[in-house]
Amino acid sequence: MPAEVALLARHLRTLWSAGGTVLNGWLHLPDALAAEVMARAGWDSLTVDLQHGMSGDAAALSMLQAITGTAVVPLVRVPGLDPERIMRMLDWGFLGVICPMVETAAQARALVQACRYPPHGDRSFGPTRAALIYGPEYGAWADAEVLIFAMIETVRGLENLDEILATPGLSGIYVGPGDLGQTMGIGAKLDRDDADFLETLRDLAQRTTARGLIPGVFAVSPAYGHRMAGFGYRLITLSSDFRLLNTGARQSVNEFARLSAESPTKSR
Amino acid sequence: MPAEVALLARHLRTLWSAGGTVLNGWLHLPDALAAEVMARAGWDSLTVDLQHGMSGDAAALSMLQAITGTAVVPLVRVPGLDPERIMRMLDWGFLGVICPMVETAAQARALVQACRYPPHGDRSFGPTRAALIYGPEYGAWADAEVLIFAMIETVRGLENLDEILATPGLSGIYVGPGDLGQTMGIGAKLDRDDADFLETLRDLAQRTTARGLIPGVFAVSPAYGHRMAGFGYRLITLSSDFRLLNTGARQSVNEFARLSAESPTKSR
Amino acid sequence: MPAEVALLARHLRTLWSAGGTVLNGWLHLPDALAAEVMARAGWDSLTVDLQHGMSGDAAALSMLQAITGTAVVPLVRVPGLDPERIMRMLDWGFLGVICPMVETAAQARALVQACRYPPHGDRSFGPTRAALIYGPEYGAWADAEVLIFAMIETVRGLENLDEILATPGLSGIYVGPGDLGQTMGIGAKLDRDDADFLETLRDLAQRTTARGLIPGVFAVSPAYGHRMAGFGYRLITLSSDFRLLNTGARQSVNEFARLSAESPTKSR
Amino acid sequence: MPAEVALLARHLRTLWSAGGTVLNGWLHLPDALAAEVMARAGWDSLTVDLQHGMSGDAAALSMLQAITGTAVVPLVRVPGLDPERIMRMLDWGFLGVICPMVETAAQARALVQACRYPPHGDRSFGPTRAALIYGPEYGAWADAEVLIFAMIETVRGLENLDEILATPGLSGIYVGPGDLGQTMGIGAKLDRDDADFLETLRDLAQRTTARGLIPGVFAVSPAYGHRMAGFGYRLITLSSDFRLLNTGARQSVNEFARLSAESPTKSR
Amino acid sequence: MPAEVALLARHLRTLWSAGGTVLNGWLHLPDALAAEVMARAGWDSLTVDLQHGMSGDAAALSMLQAITGTAVVPLVRVPGLDPERIMRMLDWGFLGVICPMVETAAQARALVQACRYPPHGDRSFGPTRAALIYGPEYGAWADAEVLIFAMIETVRGLENLDEILATPGLSGIYVGPGDLGQTMGIGAKLDRDDADFLETLRDLAQRTTARGLIPGVFAVSPAYGHRMAGFGYRLITLSSDFRLLNTGARQSVNEFARLSAESPTKSR
Amino acid sequence: MPAEVALLARHLRTLWSAGGTVLNGWLHLPDALAAEVMARAGWDSLTVDLQHGMSGDAAALSMLQAITGTAVVPLVRVPGLDPERIMRMLDWGFLGVICPMVETAAQARALVQACRYPPHGDRSFGPTRAALIYGPEYGAWADAEVLIFAMIETVRGLENLDEILATPGLSGIYVGPGDLGQTMGIGAKLDRDDADFLETLRDLAQRTTARGLIPGVFAVSPAYGHRMAGFGYRLITLSSDFRLLNTGARQSVNEFARLSAESPTKSR
Repeated sequence: MPAEVALLARHLRTLWSAGGTVLNGWLHLPDALAAEVMARAGWDSLTVDLQHGMSGDAAALSMLQAITGTAVVPLVRVPGLDPERIMRMLDWGFLGVICPMVETAAQARALVQACRYPPHGDRSFGPTRAALIYGPEYGAWADAEVLIFAMIETVRGLENLDEILATPGLSGIYVGPGDLGQTMGIGAKLDRDDADFLETLRDLAQRTTARGLIPGVFAVSPAYGHRMAGFGYRLITLSSDFRLLNTGARQSVNEFARLSAESPTKSR
Repeated sequence: MPAEVALLARHLRTLWSAGGTVLNGWLHLPDALAAEVMARAGWDSLTVDLQHGMSGDAAALSMLQAITGTAVVPLVRVPGLDPERIMRMLDWGFLGVICPMVETAAQARALVQACRYPPHGDRSFGPTRAALIYGPEYGAWADAEVLIFAMIETVRGLENLDEILATPGLSGIYVGPGDLGQTMGIGAKLDRDDADFLETLRDLAQRTTARGLIPGVFAVSPAYGHRMAGFGYRLITLSSDFRLLNTGARQSVNEFARLSAESPTKSR
Repeated sequence: MPAEVALLARHLRTLWSAGGTVLNGWLHLPDALAAEVMARAGWDSLTVDLQHGMSGDAAALSMLQAITGTAVVPLVRVPGLDPERIMRMLDWGFLGVICPMVETAAQARALVQACRYPPHGDRSFGPTRAALIYGPEYGAWADAEVLIFAMIETVRGLENLDEILATPGLSGIYVGPGDLGQTMGIGAKLDRDDADFLETLRDLAQRTTARGLIPGVFAVSPAYGHRMAGFGYRLITLSSDFRLLNTGARQSVNEFARLSAESPTKSR
Repeated sequence: MPAEVALLARHLRTLWSAGGTVLNGWLHLPDALAAEVMARAGWDSLTVDLQHGMSGDAAALSMLQAITGTAVVPLVRVPGLDPERIMRMLDWGFLGVICPMVETAAQARALVQACRYPPHGDRSFGPTRAALIYGPEYGAWADAEVLIFAMIETVRGLENLDEILATPGLSGIYVGPGDLGQTMGIGAKLDRDDADFLETLRDLAQRTTARGLIPGVFAVSPAYGHRMAGFGYRLITLSSDFRLLNTGARQSVNEFARLSAESPTKSR
Repeated sequence: MPAEVALLARHLRTLWSAGGTVLNGWLHLPDALAAEVMARAGWDSLTVDLQHGMSGDAAALSMLQAITGTAVVPLVRVPGLDPERIMRMLDWGFLGVICPMVETAAQARALVQACRYPPHGDRSFGPTRAALIYGPEYGAWADAEVLIFAMIETVRGLENLDEILATPGLSGIYVGPGDLGQTMGIGAKLDRDDADFLETLRDLAQRTTARGLIPGVFAVSPAYGHRMAGFGYRLITLSSDFRLLNTGARQSVNEFARLSAESPTKSR
Repeated sequence: MPAEVALLARHLRTLWSAGGTVLNGWLHLPDALAAEVMARAGWDSLTVDLQHGMSGDAAALSMLQAITGTAVVPLVRVPGLDPERIMRMLDWGFLGVICPMVETAAQARALVQACRYPPHGDRSFGPTRAALIYGPEYGAWADAEVLIFAMIETVRGLENLDEILATPGLSGIYVGPGDLGQTMGIGAKLDRDDADFLETLRDLAQRTTARGLIPGVFAVSPAYGHRMAGFGYRLITLSSDFRLLNTGARQSVNEFARLSAESPTKSR
């Protein structure tokens, strides 16, 4: 494949091979301009979240088009293990899939099969936009390069981790700490600090790494993300565009209010 | 008009009457969800910027719909002194207009005329969505309540300030420090600190206030906005959704990088 | 031109030649499906209102596409006398233009010029979609067939009526009773009943007809529209999709409430 | 939760507790402005129909945003028992789900599970927009407040009614008379009058009420809806925006034609 | 049904009855204007491809609206055997469905059931737009007229061909040569020339015809399509809008480059 | 400015400096995917046509985003000499403007002023997306790099050519042969062959080149474009996406029909 396509399609694997950690941005706003802002902020990859985000098909396509042409790898979190949608997102040009709620090896296999062409899978052939963007040889290298992450975010997924990790073709796992906590009965809090949970997170990363796969995780603060890197996570999401905008706006408003309270202007 | 409509339509005037300062958010992303995030962040008003923002008609309508139903007053910055567009934006339900590049009293009068019904102006009657949202009496109170701000952002506008301020029906001025600096030959820098420029800003606010009108201004940081409040500005914009997202994303990425550099994880 | 194109492009003129009255639907909802509903309800023509309606460019195009293929003639009310927009709407395939706020013969001439190719006007050549839909000969017959209506909706327009009616190429006038009342100082009420105003409406129709042009008018109720037909109006709008939906919904809700009040169910 | 959120989230339950009947509007037009018109017409709740309506994801989000901020409760009719979509719609902020074609208790349980967080269900945690609009405690009260209606619209669903009604967490049933008639072999007619069918409808309402659940039904005319209220239905839909517009437009056109036929104007 | 509706709904069957071949255009661009261009280029039918194309729900609706009103029959290729989506597309007004990856008689039966009303199938009643466009009797004739094509595009589908062809209500099969080659282990090449594959294509057409059903196939070049007609295929797709644009643009650019190289202009 | 930004912003000037000719694609379809197809077909620049094309603001932004990230220079043809729109398009990131119907030196000066910051023009400062994409120094180099083409497409423009060419800051002219022919009274035919007209075209190119400016022209066929290069034109448009799709589709259909007529299949 052409050099610049290889550069992009292999960008994350190259970072991992060099011992690096991939910093992943998360897109909840259904807006291509927000995606462009994020695509120029320094992330290695950006994930359009079709599960908890507000993007439908048309927004996902626009956002993908807005990321295309930058050095950022476009990933998609699909709403579930729906092969038709997974195939469509790959045809459009996403270079990796994060699939929620994988709980069994059978599901992990079904996920991989949706992402790969026969004889290694069931993916239907028709990489319309992908072939336009990445070149006519896309079909030849897609099976090797497309990233496939199974989300581990339930107690059941945790229990079946070893079998899931044994799935041929899987690139790694991606831990959803919110749902994991929820199914553990300790609530959906993010960036949580309790020792047991942290131990679970560390264990997940180590077992995944031990199988030669990449562990990924969702975090909110850079500090927590850094902690996860210390645990061995190599695909680390920080916050989301939605959350960053929300936090930034509130901080501005509150800071102005604080200053006004401290030193009110005469007229007030 | 119904109590809750009066509450909204008069919200900014009520704040000003009580000696308060209006904190205004600025919308550059053409996205109704970003507008919803902003509408719940604590701003008193939100301005859809059709001049330097990326919103066209359809986005402006969606964003306005997303603001409707909150206590935030929807304003629009139009791209220029185009009566047709100004009227359409008011018909859709914006409760105030900020018009760029007003340089003469004649322009200020044309602006006011575009916002008011005969006999006080030329506004064509047909407040379709406005009457739906604010009630059938909209036509009766619109002239009195719609806010009209003329942007002073050129040397020429500055020179003609007194005449502009004498325009009947004008609510206030809104200073664009970027263009003002540019036309002064000192560049378009925002939140600038040089004494002469600050003196100009202070003078603008005082002369406007002296005429019983509201001075407004664009700032980036809360600290600078607070300084402007100290100068007498009563409608103060801080940053924009676009800028807040950009800054927030870069801060997260950079903070993670800093932490990683300080204390690299083993695998790197 | 092909028979079915001629049928459409000349449909209104054919009705008028036969002494008929054109019943015109009015589109305020920016929605192509609503346009399809309207296009199958029996109107002779449909007008996409870009002045007081909520449609921008993209919605106008979709709505026009939704009307195309029916026997209904697509007209557009532009926001003002803006030749660039008028030309673009004609290039897209609208077969007639209603232009608001025409007050002088010079404006009427400018309107006609925007709608006609040199040497009879200034219209720039490039009927992209129009030629696709109506055929490659579109350029040859457009000048003859495109309908051009100047809105008379101010006292000044009324005063200059004779000169306006003398404009070569003008198809007719279209009376906006809301703005007319407003500029007369009697308010923007629609379907008004006062003798003087009715006399003005009748006079407008008669003078227009006397010049061989078509008088049009906006009405709300079928009864008032019928009355206008009696005055000689030949292009009669009734209500709008927005208003019809609003009225229909309120009637359903109120009728249910009335029935419930009359004969409350046991559980209430 | 904040008072105004509680007011909305519990609005329908409050009406039911007081012995009232909920009047529900139905949205088939994929248009946020039509949704705004409907949201101000007096309905207690509005249902975006993703099954037989023309809205896709983007329209559903815009329509929901347009309803937000009014006192109307936003519900969604999903196209089928697809947990991923149900979860996404709840994450976006719909406060209730109507699910078509529920025929067995197992399906009813799956429906409830899709709407509730562990340990009571499988809903994935990530109420992005819901938490923005309703506040950060959304996750704590969602299980208790989100409304869940199983559609009974087949003979098989009817046969299994008692088991379906026994599903913990179900709010009620919603009868689809069109499909019910169709599967009974008597056609899909709405507002039907035959005694047997009416008896079935009455029986459905009574058995549902007997289990402490809410019976809902689709009707077209206010008179039929009122009759259904008499049968004990407490969630009553009347017509749809699409149908109201269609009927209203045809009535205007026909009334004008009737008047013209009765008393033709001279020129005809 | 009205004559012009019958003309459209039966157009393909009429062509087939007369021994003709249906020429089908394929829509990958998510754009209603491109659909209009295609709808006026001479195809008998147009298929909106929701599997490998870039259209989501909103684009599919717009494209369908753009085709409506022409003599071209609108078909849809759904992404998979998803009854909810199939039903929705039919409710919107598509007159035929092409379903990918049908491999068993059970799947073929499920496909047919999704397209037909009880008692012949499971289709839910609510043909909203279909009834608007085709008239209120749509429900009465839809089962008889809606076209249902099962894609044969895997070795397994090939093996089960006879059973699939025995499915009551199936209109025909549609061969996907790309996926068929891929599952055969010979790659996804289109318009392939190897004797064995051609023999398979011929055999498929003959066996389908022998059962009284219509064989369809995807081709790229007119020459290959013509060859397929010679094999007995009666529904023949040629290329796609996406591919036609791509090829046309490259040809223009390359031809200009060739001319420039042959006879460089002085200044180069 | 960063190397890759300089590469893009100066790409056309670099080609011209090397004696090359810029091949320009023309975008009439309001679709970002079509723009992506065109952006990968080999054109040096692509022009979004907002005058005769079907794109509104939202489409123009999406198309621009789709071009960004390729080596193709994005230009815009605005609908007219409207400074507000020109400034907005530049703020969004278009790197050049083609303005129709420039007939006088005063208009040419107004065009240049709209594209340049004070003190060289009137452009308002706020390059939101432009600064995101091209970097924070955008404001410093925009005046020097943004391309400004005045369309010469009327007899009057021709007569005033020398004065127009004398406008400081103008990059070149762009000839619209359709409108030029129309105003000459010889019709709007494209790619015309008559000696007088060709002489006019040649003269226009030579006089423009003599003033050190770039002559551009619209052509349809590569052969005609090549001929124009021979005349000295250096910015040459060939056809449009709309026309290429239309031609390509008709050719496929016709070629299939021709083959079928030549060698009908047995069944016909």
